[in-house]
Amino acid sequence: MTTIVLASRNEGKIVELRRILSGIGVVGQPGDAPDVPETELTFAGNALLKARAIAAHTGLPAVADDSGLCVDALNGMPGVLSARWSGRFGGAAGAGKDRANLELLLDQLADVADEARGAHFFCAAALVVPGGGEHVVEGRMHGRVVRAPRGEGGFGYDPIFVPVDETRTTAELSPAEKDAISHRGVAFRELAKIIPDALAAVRGTG
Amino acid sequence: MTTIVLASRNEGKIVELRRILSGIGVVGQPGDAPDVPETELTFAGNALLKARAIAAHTGLPAVADDSGLCVDALNGMPGVLSARWSGRFGGAAGAGKDRANLELLLDQLADVADEARGAHFFCAAALVVPGGGEHVVEGRMHGRVVRAPRGEGGFGYDPIFVPVDETRTTAELSPAEKDAISHRGVAFRELAKIIPDALAAVRGTG
Repeated sequence: MTTIVLASRNEGKIVELRRILSGIGVVGQPGDAPDVPETELTFAGNALLKARAIAAHTGLPAVADDSGLCVDALNGMPGVLSARWSGRFGGAAGAGKDRANLELLLDQLADVADEARGAHFFCAAALVVPGGGEHVVEGRMHGRVVRAPRGEGGFGYDPIFVPVDETRTTAELSPAEKDAISHRGVAFRELAKIIPDALAAVRGTG
Repeated sequence: MTTIVLASRNEGKIVELRRILSGIGVVGQPGDAPDVPETELTFAGNALLKARAIAAHTGLPAVADDSGLCVDALNGMPGVLSARWSGRFGGAAGAGKDRANLELLLDQLADVADEARGAHFFCAAALVVPGGGEHVVEGRMHGRVVRAPRGEGGFGYDPIFVPVDETRTTAELSPAEKDAISHRGVAFRELAKIIPDALAAVRGTG
């Protein structure tokens, strides 16, 4: 079975993506992998940056995603800056930063009425095959931002996001329930469909 | 001379606006004026909210502005949330909050390239005359966000904003230089032009 490298240091994402890509041999990125600044202004651009860097570093097919929460009342932000939204006030990456990010977002939306709190999670997932092609797929999950965190599951903004047709936050859903509707679930199931052909194309010419 | 009330508690704004409206008798809002939450998603909406509330409270013609910095790479945010951008991390309003807001913005833009750091200050200025009409005018100042604060003048995001055709930040300009090109200068000079007729119309029917 071919090995695919997942270009991420975010433990929450790695757990989710392994679950979704369970039929494929997935390893996390090696410890000496380069740090790739997410300098692009689009999710697809950042996902490709990361997948290209890890494919070049390892010589293996690499998968990366860039995801974020796009809030209507903030013109689609935090968007590609979701993980870095609270800047210095959130400290280093991890649960503390996740908490600071969502607290800042709640404060920014404090005066925004319930009917104007629409938002969607967006995911761009990229596959880069060394000597082969580049592929990007997308997924969305629509919903709204509530006023206080609820739930212990998920990560990032999950405790303050309620999907359409749900009353629970995505942090209150089971992992399987979340995967079934999530932006990342949608995108990675799309990617799983194209992985066999994308890898076979390289083998065929190798 | 008719008295106009300025609907603001922001000392920096009051100083600027008195300077620009120097030919008109301007007083600050009374200490017992109601606190008006800026619940609108537009500058014009918030300026009208504030001017209406102070006109109703005092029975005098009221002027209010709502201003902010609109950053291209943030899809126009912080925008109407400029003064509240850092939420709980900035503490209460004042110089400390101004500093936290601009530090957060610099962190959010840390990976944004120089050529993508365009921004503009926007001002909507409203005049509400009790028993008379409502008027809103607008002003803009285009420029870019630099990477470190410079200058001691102005307030808010002035230390990190360089106007088009300038090398200095708006915090390094003299008050007169800033008024000549600023979003608020443009908007309030427009308002000054219409104030005499707006007030005369009420007197004529009183």
